[in-house]
Amino acid sequence: MNIDWRRNNSLTHFFFHCSTCDLESKVVIENFLDKKLHEILHVKAEKLDHAIKTGIIKFFEFHGFPAMQFKKDVGVMETGTVIYFRNKIEVIRGFPKIRRTLMLSPTLKNHFKDKIALEEKMNGYNVRIASIGDEIIAITRRGYVCPYTTKKALEIMDLKDFFNDNPDLVICGEMLGTENPYVAHYYEEVGDIGFRVFDIRKKVSNEPMSIKEKTELLEKYGLPIVRLIGIYEVNEALSIIKKVIKEIGSVGREGIVIKDPSMEIPPLKYTSSEAHDDELRYAFTYPFDFGRDFFFSRVIREGFQAFEMKENKEELEKRAHRLGEAILYPMIDTIKNVASGNTAGENLIIDVANAEEAEDFLHYLHDLGVFAVLIKFEGNKAVIRKIHQSTTDKITNYINGGLY
Amino acid sequence: MNIDWRRNNSLTHFFFHCSTCDLESKVVIENFLDKKLHEILHVKAEKLDHAIKTGIIKFFEFHGFPAMQFKKDVGVMETGTVIYFRNKIEVIRGFPKIRRTLMLSPTLKNHFKDKIALEEKMNGYNVRIASIGDEIIAITRRGYVCPYTTKKALEIMDLKDFFNDNPDLVICGEMLGTENPYVAHYYEEVGDIGFRVFDIRKKVSNEPMSIKEKTELLEKYGLPIVRLIGIYEVNEALSIIKKVIKEIGSVGREGIVIKDPSMEIPPLKYTSSEAHDDELRYAFTYPFDFGRDFFFSRVIREGFQAFEMKENKEELEKRAHRLGEAILYPMIDTIKNVASGNTAGENLIIDVANAEEAEDFLHYLHDLGVFAVLIKFEGNKAVIRKIHQSTTDKITNYINGGLY
Repeated sequence: MNIDWRRNNSLTHFFFHCSTCDLESKVVIENFLDKKLHEILHVKAEKLDHAIKTGIIKFFEFHGFPAMQFKKDVGVMETGTVIYFRNKIEVIRGFPKIRRTLMLSPTLKNHFKDKIALEEKMNGYNVRIASIGDEIIAITRRGYVCPYTTKKALEIMDLKDFFNDNPDLVICGEMLGTENPYVAHYYEEVGDIGFRVFDIRKKVSNEPMSIKEKTELLEKYGLPIVRLIGIYEVNEALSIIKKVIKEIGSVGREGIVIKDPSMEIPPLKYTSSEAHDDELRYAFTYPFDFGRDFFFSRVIREGFQAFEMKENKEELEKRAHRLGEAILYPMIDTIKNVASGNTAGENLIIDVANAEEAEDFLHYLHDLGVFAVLIKFEGNKAVIRKIHQSTTDKITNYINGGLY
Repeated sequence: MNIDWRRNNSLTHFFFHCSTCDLESKVVIENFLDKKLHEILHVKAEKLDHAIKTGIIKFFEFHGFPAMQFKKDVGVMETGTVIYFRNKIEVIRGFPKIRRTLMLSPTLKNHFKDKIALEEKMNGYNVRIASIGDEIIAITRRGYVCPYTTKKALEIMDLKDFFNDNPDLVICGEMLGTENPYVAHYYEEVGDIGFRVFDIRKKVSNEPMSIKEKTELLEKYGLPIVRLIGIYEVNEALSIIKKVIKEIGSVGREGIVIKDPSMEIPPLKYTSSEAHDDELRYAFTYPFDFGRDFFFSRVIREGFQAFEMKENKEELEKRAHRLGEAILYPMIDTIKNVASGNTAGENLIIDVANAEEAEDFLHYLHDLGVFAVLIKFEGNKAVIRKIHQSTTDKITNYINGGLY
């Protein structure tokens, strides 16, 4: 008997079907999950039930066991929360949204206590790594178990001892490098692929370790930690951060996360002007897929940063010109490209053992609704082309005389 | 007895109330309007009824007579259509949306027949002028009778003879100049305030006159016509328009409307790069009021224009830098401004006979949901400050440490 994942399972009943005789039946779990989950998660049963009915919580099967994925926040449970039902119920909370400040002053003093820790924010994708039974899995921000990320995380790091000793902890970090399939960005110290841990959090409660505890634990197990720029008095932080953010930007890096060293206050993020332009450059390479959503917030960040940095005429001009180029140049390149008969898309490279593994990853992408095709597999590298259909279609229409 | 405009009037009944005895009663017009309107407008009665129920068609009183305003398209009736019920039912159709092309080639050849007329598109606001009974009124794009526009139109132009002879025609044009309260833009030949006619259309059918008929009729009555750049063969138009649009842009003017000389094919509009930046400059002076809606389409226009103009490196750079400056500089100015305790807003000047007239105009603006105050009245000029509240509030919040 297997759980029938094509049916609407809920907190109180699962549909089963027999693979040999096609018998289908419904098994009621006597409110077990209902009561139990309510107790563990501190979310009302009605809220959970409503979220299941509206598809905000999805059931899925993971290696024969039932699991739940939270597609949006439900009560205190963050988007991306996943729950595995094995002998034990394992709750891996979604990574909490880090809020952004547009102004360093007065926010730093308003928001933090006496000291802050500055960590570098790197440009990759957010991954949580946890052990479920005797398996170690890597979960993306939205709560999917990515097969490629899982494999790479285990290749890059020796995680066994850490999770043997700490089965109730979750490692939160950034997957980086040019051979990651989501946000490819070159870092000299990372190269093809790498991982940097920024948080260690507890299962169920999502409680983070302090900077000190986290650093010691990661050092003990030889795991790679994100760069700690320093711990500073709040009073001296403003000028330091201004300097740091300019340096970080000038070498094409993203930004910083400002943390309470004890992690009792939620962290804040702040990013470099060059990072804003990088994102605009990407968005306007595929304007009809990303332009509208990306644009406004990046431009607003630029406005407040220029204001706070008290830039002179030359600095302002440089920032404005860089902004204009970031928006216009990639768009024109893509129009030219589509006009010559190409599709708007990007190639991503992943490192896989065989063509099958590449196909598995493609299936995974298709399930997420991403249109991608394998275009080459050679010497363990698979080149996958991700097609941006809206941009391709709309540009094709306009250059053929379609009206706006 | 008066029509009670506080009640839900419909096509088949009006609520009346007596101003002396407070008697209220409902008068059923025996489907008169229902059948009659259906016949005149060629819109199904059910559609009209539905639009009235959902507030898309609003009833209002105009000088004691009932009237209807279409807030959105209903069947073939355009947004901004107004209908006056007097001895006669007068239908003034909304001004049809002019579609835009992002590419001149191949659109010109696809869309038009052998010849095209190029008219200048000027930067003001769209006004329809018509006679209703023995009155001449000026109606804004969305279908409001603007008291200031009506007064100015009658001051600027001698319209009586035209409407005496042609009561079934509607004059469509642009109100221009620095003393118009909606889109103040300086034109050397216009100065404070001026009007240019671009279309003459029939009541009820909205049928436009050909370029030739329109020109002759306007000349006969001495009415100001928008600049006709020329009439060209479609085959030679591409290079001419490219040249014209660059010239128009280089002197800070807006663009062109490309028309079929017989007006049988819908016109198309095309605008200069400088006009796109002008609009962005305005939008990013009040980023949280207009930024999000304005941005994307203007930037897309720039991308396609740069591509079609086959610009070289220097021209492209100039366009990109101008774009960046148009977005960033006004936003920083406004942040500075709000940081020093001012509100984000703009002063508009109108020319009025007395303070009462200015107050009337303010009431009219308030009814439209615009927040504006009279800040000065001196020598027939009223200075009105239009406040952009979202921009003021959001910037104030962020510079006080509000998180994004």
